Amino acid sequence: MAAKLYDLELSGNCYKVRLFASLLGVPLQIIPVDFRAGEHKRPPLSDLNPRGEIPILQDGDVVLRDSQAILVYMARKWGGENWLPTDAVGLSRVCEWLLTAENEIARGPGDARLHDKFGYALDVAAARDKAKRILTLMEAHLTGQPWLALGRPTIADIACMPYVALGHEGGVPLDEFPAVKEWVGRIKALPGFIGMPAI
Amino acid sequence: MAAKLYDLELSGNCYKVRLFASLLGVPLQIIPVDFRAGEHKRPPLSDLNPRGEIPILQDGDVVLRDSQAILVYMARKWGGENWLPTDAVGLSRVCEWLLTAENEIARGPGDARLHDKFGYALDVAAARDKAKRILTLMEAHLTGQPWLALGRPTIADIACMPYVALGHEGGVPLDEFPAVKEWVGRIKALPGFIGMPAI
Repeated sequence: MAAKLYDLELSGNCYKVRLFASLLGVPLQIIPVDFRAGEHKRPPLSDLNPRGEIPILQDGDVVLRDSQAILVYMARKWGGENWLPTDAVGLSRVCEWLLTAENEIARGPGDARLHDKFGYALDVAAARDKAKRILTLMEAHLTGQPWLALGRPTIADIACMPYVALGHEGGVPLDEFPAVKEWVGRIKALPGFIGMPAI
Repeated sequence: MAAKLYDLELSGNCYKVRLFASLLGVPLQIIPVDFRAGEHKRPPLSDLNPRGEIPILQDGDVVLRDSQAILVYMARKWGGENWLPTDAVGLSRVCEWLLTAENEIARGPGDARLHDKFGYALDVAAARDKAKRILTLMEAHLTGQPWLALGRPTIADIACMPYVALGHEGGVPLDEFPAVKEWVGRIKALPGFIGMPAI
């Protein structure tokens, strides 16, 4: 039976799970969550994830929260060593970028979009500053290499791409960051790629 | 030759690397960084980590940033499967908490301490709210099980403990969270444990 994804179409965090499943060729049972009605903050969903957040992946007895941790699970279960190697250097290099997705990218372009598109009350100027700082670092990094963590696409790229590519919805377009733009293009060219609204 | 840790004694992120090395029985060459003088923001350190942050681990040719990613590297290189298993469920369960250390714990008790102890200009009320939210979740979680991710200590516990145990330095003491306090005590009882100022 296919794993269940409790999903919101407009969430970049949910999208990265759908995208990776498509790249792996693994079917998911998509369960849309009524986010506006707060369905994710009430049982039965808050029993699956007490933090009241989505995505949630349910694969038989295994229930996982956090989009980055879900990518780790999927890579180990269905992707062999390709998308997430387990040697010390390879695994920690991929983790550096999973943690960047959770921190600088979420607090930068992610938060800026939450403000502009969904009306979240947060300091959007600070979020845009953080966005420009991490995009500047990614621009330098991606000027020297095609993929974030290793010499091939990994879940580091899948984790970091959505909120970077959605930056224009938070006032952080990629015009000044051509190497980042080309990297997004390389991900879009991967076999099995799927988009989401605004990507 | 021992790996080099570019270190600040009062940083909880640097401390978790020193602590884990001690638990593993692996020697590190500690290189104190003059944080007040901004040594980490200038070459040669900013060449090792363009983000201008510490800790940085340098092990031969391998240079790593981000304390959580450094724990991953050390666990895979020196810890076998004990501290970080590589099966899909085990690895993703540990990652859920590494990502919590990077996000909710850093933005909660971590930021509250940065404000109170080091004078960072940030919204300390918001940080304390976040701290109480994640501590409440951890309290419920640790009421049912002794360790965060698996039935034994893993790098999830090492990553999450320091800023939780330092919460009192940011106005977030653990008095209301007895299960969290006991969990900190269990970590302190591990063979090879070392402390830091205020822990």
